[in-house]
Amino acid sequence: MEGITFTVADKLKIVKKLDEFGIDYIEAGNPGSNPKDIEFFNEIKKLKLKNSRLAAFGSTRRAGMKTEEDKNVIALLDAGSEVITIFGKTWDMHVTKIIKTTMEENLFMIKDTIAFFKGRGKEVIFDAEHFFDGYKANSMYAMSSLQAAIEGGADCLVLCDTNGGSFPEEIGNIVKIVSKQFDKPIGIHCHNDCGMAVGNSITAVLNGAVQIQGTINGYGERCGNANLCTVIPNLQLKKDFRTIPKHQLSQLTSLSRYISEVANMSHNENEPYVGNNAFAHKGGMHIDAVIKDPFSFEHISPEAVGNKRRILMSEVSGRSTILKKIQAIEPTLTKDSEKIQEIIDLLKRLEHSGYQFEGAESSFELIVRKAMGKHKKFFSVMDFYILSQNQDRSDLSATAVIKVEVNGREEITASEGDGPVNALDCALRKALEIFYPELRRMRLNDYKVRVLDTEQATAAKVRVHIESTDGQKIWGTVGVSTNIIEASFTALIDSIEYFIMSCEKNNEIQVAGELEKERLIEGVF
Amino acid sequence: MEGITFTVADKLKIVKKLDEFGIDYIEAGNPGSNPKDIEFFNEIKKLKLKNSRLAAFGSTRRAGMKTEEDKNVIALLDAGSEVITIFGKTWDMHVTKIIKTTMEENLFMIKDTIAFFKGRGKEVIFDAEHFFDGYKANSMYAMSSLQAAIEGGADCLVLCDTNGGSFPEEIGNIVKIVSKQFDKPIGIHCHNDCGMAVGNSITAVLNGAVQIQGTINGYGERCGNANLCTVIPNLQLKKDFRTIPKHQLSQLTSLSRYISEVANMSHNENEPYVGNNAFAHKGGMHIDAVIKDPFSFEHISPEAVGNKRRILMSEVSGRSTILKKIQAIEPTLTKDSEKIQEIIDLLKRLEHSGYQFEGAESSFELIVRKAMGKHKKFFSVMDFYILSQNQDRSDLSATAVIKVEVNGREEITASEGDGPVNALDCALRKALEIFYPELRRMRLNDYKVRVLDTEQATAAKVRVHIESTDGQKIWGTVGVSTNIIEASFTALIDSIEYFIMSCEKNNEIQVAGELEKERLIEGVF
Repeated sequence: MEGITFTVADKLKIVKKLDEFGIDYIEAGNPGSNPKDIEFFNEIKKLKLKNSRLAAFGSTRRAGMKTEEDKNVIALLDAGSEVITIFGKTWDMHVTKIIKTTMEENLFMIKDTIAFFKGRGKEVIFDAEHFFDGYKANSMYAMSSLQAAIEGGADCLVLCDTNGGSFPEEIGNIVKIVSKQFDKPIGIHCHNDCGMAVGNSITAVLNGAVQIQGTINGYGERCGNANLCTVIPNLQLKKDFRTIPKHQLSQLTSLSRYISEVANMSHNENEPYVGNNAFAHKGGMHIDAVIKDPFSFEHISPEAVGNKRRILMSEVSGRSTILKKIQAIEPTLTKDSEKIQEIIDLLKRLEHSGYQFEGAESSFELIVRKAMGKHKKFFSVMDFYILSQNQDRSDLSATAVIKVEVNGREEITASEGDGPVNALDCALRKALEIFYPELRRMRLNDYKVRVLDTEQATAAKVRVHIESTDGQKIWGTVGVSTNIIEASFTALIDSIEYFIMSCEKNNEIQVAGELEKERLIEGVF
Repeated sequence: MEGITFTVADKLKIVKKLDEFGIDYIEAGNPGSNPKDIEFFNEIKKLKLKNSRLAAFGSTRRAGMKTEEDKNVIALLDAGSEVITIFGKTWDMHVTKIIKTTMEENLFMIKDTIAFFKGRGKEVIFDAEHFFDGYKANSMYAMSSLQAAIEGGADCLVLCDTNGGSFPEEIGNIVKIVSKQFDKPIGIHCHNDCGMAVGNSITAVLNGAVQIQGTINGYGERCGNANLCTVIPNLQLKKDFRTIPKHQLSQLTSLSRYISEVANMSHNENEPYVGNNAFAHKGGMHIDAVIKDPFSFEHISPEAVGNKRRILMSEVSGRSTILKKIQAIEPTLTKDSEKIQEIIDLLKRLEHSGYQFEGAESSFELIVRKAMGKHKKFFSVMDFYILSQNQDRSDLSATAVIKVEVNGREEITASEGDGPVNALDCALRKALEIFYPELRRMRLNDYKVRVLDTEQATAAKVRVHIESTDGQKIWGTVGVSTNIIEASFTALIDSIEYFIMSCEKNNEIQVAGELEKERLIEGVF
């Protein structure tokens, strides 16, 4: 997919993870077209997989060439994988207009290439490229291409909707016809160009397909492939198919996030089953119902896929919701405590002034702790200045100067940055990392600005929402002000305080404290 | 959806856009549960819609209450919309466990509420909440709820997969049964919790549904609603259904981007049909094939939905669309002009660096005029500084110092503001109003910030989009930079230049020039 490039190390990590998770086949590269993939297949030989079979992917031999003389075929063989996936043309238009060979030669290319690998002890999967378009254009020919694959010895015939243009009922009908005609396992490979890759894959399975090709999070060219994070629970939880070992399903959310991290893509929080919003409830009526019975507004239990329910606070959420959220932080508070009313009033004032705590649960928690007198101050910012200047418009930059205080010790430092917020962020971390070295593990993941009332334009209130991560957890904070710097500053401070607080809970801060003393003694300042 | 909050002004803009586009019904708010929506319905009355009918959305009356005494029902009536959408319970579990009333009373609630609005001349759509879950649990009761709606006089019965847990074949079967049983238009409302909202909606239509409820870009709670940007072209291009006026389909991509901008969400570039990657081709083999015949790897022609093919290796795309836009500004340019290629190259470079001209047509026009050598420079900014400081965190403010030059005369001035961008904006106007007093008529209407690549957080590139108005016209400009101040500055300058240019066209600048002379004589400086 555009924006994703995996290193060999990335690919090795992903294969290990998918193997652990219990995926049956991992198609991991095309050694004929990508030299990085040759390196990958050499490295992967050192790994023993527990659950997965590894497949190398490549084309049939070229037209008019002997199979054993085609260098892509040889590269595929050299990959040394247990399984080989061969894709071939099944759409007459592609044969005559794109690869420009005869209808007969294309069938021989399929048969010969598969026979070549079968003769060398491989399990061979045949990917029938553009099969549905091909079937619609010339069903006789498309079926002949499958026949050629069988004659070559293919172990499985995978029908591909390569352009992603097919509809569920077409997929269902054609899969049914093919299943009846050929006594071989049938697979399905769908693209999402009509937004129906998942529905099409499911329909294929319900009509006889036994192998589904897809990707984690649906990553793939154009609009993506069938998303296995949706297909797997759809089939396993709702149709009683076995796709992965049963006990592994609760690892699905974690797997999905892991792959996003390795791919360096923001996780799609609205993704079915595994998104952060997949079981998030907002309106008062929905929240009330979910508390009475989760199945009233949840199609499955979020725990089944390792996700969790989230009750969001919003303009429309009632007292009972807020109460539940406060009690999750401070279980001692009952609905009649005086403190509860005080906190709810404070939250209402903040919401009225533009705060919004959905996705900013960490700011919410800090506010509750502060109100309870349970918040420990880890640092104070004494003062800061930011200077942005434009000498000739080509060299605009910003410098921040900041003074912090930790346990009676002051530290003043400065940092440059791309713009005022970045300069402030850099200076703040620089000053605080001296006291809390674990901050080096933390980084900002997302930064969003929302203008609250547009009538005032540049003098309007802004809400800044920051998402931070330590590579494992993600937490959100929020700040509101008429000044974008102050709003960003509030959210930044919260994100850092929350992280230090979490580290302290896990006793990680002790180590940091020790380290800190050593560094002080060494005369770092 | 989490992360989206619309102001009343946002909603008005969206309604206008959807009306222009040709959507049949716009369900625009729930006046009973949200006071902001009451304000919206008051404002919208001033607008004349050309294509769309407006619907207000709300619940049946509460149990044990007279319809005309339920304040939510009255709020719905007060909304004054032509259409009313009433949702009611159809799943027995919800009746007994969630709203805790009798099975009979729930049927009366549906019938009474609909009859109330029919008696007042409204078109009434009945949203059968949780219909598919209800049908699976107790089909007799679910069907009785539809019967109650018909007895109340409902004009359309919309079957809702509220929890998004249903599969295409279930949806298809149940829609077919309902269509046979009742002689009323049937609608479908799907959620995406199984990743099949689009497939389910299409299947419903193929089995008799005639109304599809969905949202632009699929925005909606949890995993979203059926994405109309996918449903519409699926039905219109591939199944010959009429969903919107035929000539409007080429506006789909632009509509989708517009709604993302207003919602302040990053556009999903892998979205079917309307994403930037939807017709992007990467691998050599694919590109070669697409050049030989686009349909080899494209399920439809991208132009049909106003999108464009992108060849990721050698950029040769979108020419005709851009050409059309340029010719609107400079009708003398033909498609073979050298200048055209130059401008297209420049625009591509800008787009690649993060610019986007949707909603920023004024920046686009200025770029074309500058490239044509037809842009008159009204002023130059020689230099500026901004100082933001925080003395005790309660008094954070910013000061900008700016020097401008107009016709050889320099002016230096300073201004304070709420935050650096506001200070800069104030100082800039203060300096320029001396030369162009008509600037007093202009003000900023909206200011939006979008972070372009989230991985870098505060150091990421930002796109600032500014909307300005003189009280009559509205125009949009855009700026991109890693520095939020520079991006804002670029968009601000464009907005002011565009306004002065428009004034000059209308000869208003002459007057300003005269005024200017007088003020100089009076010794204003």
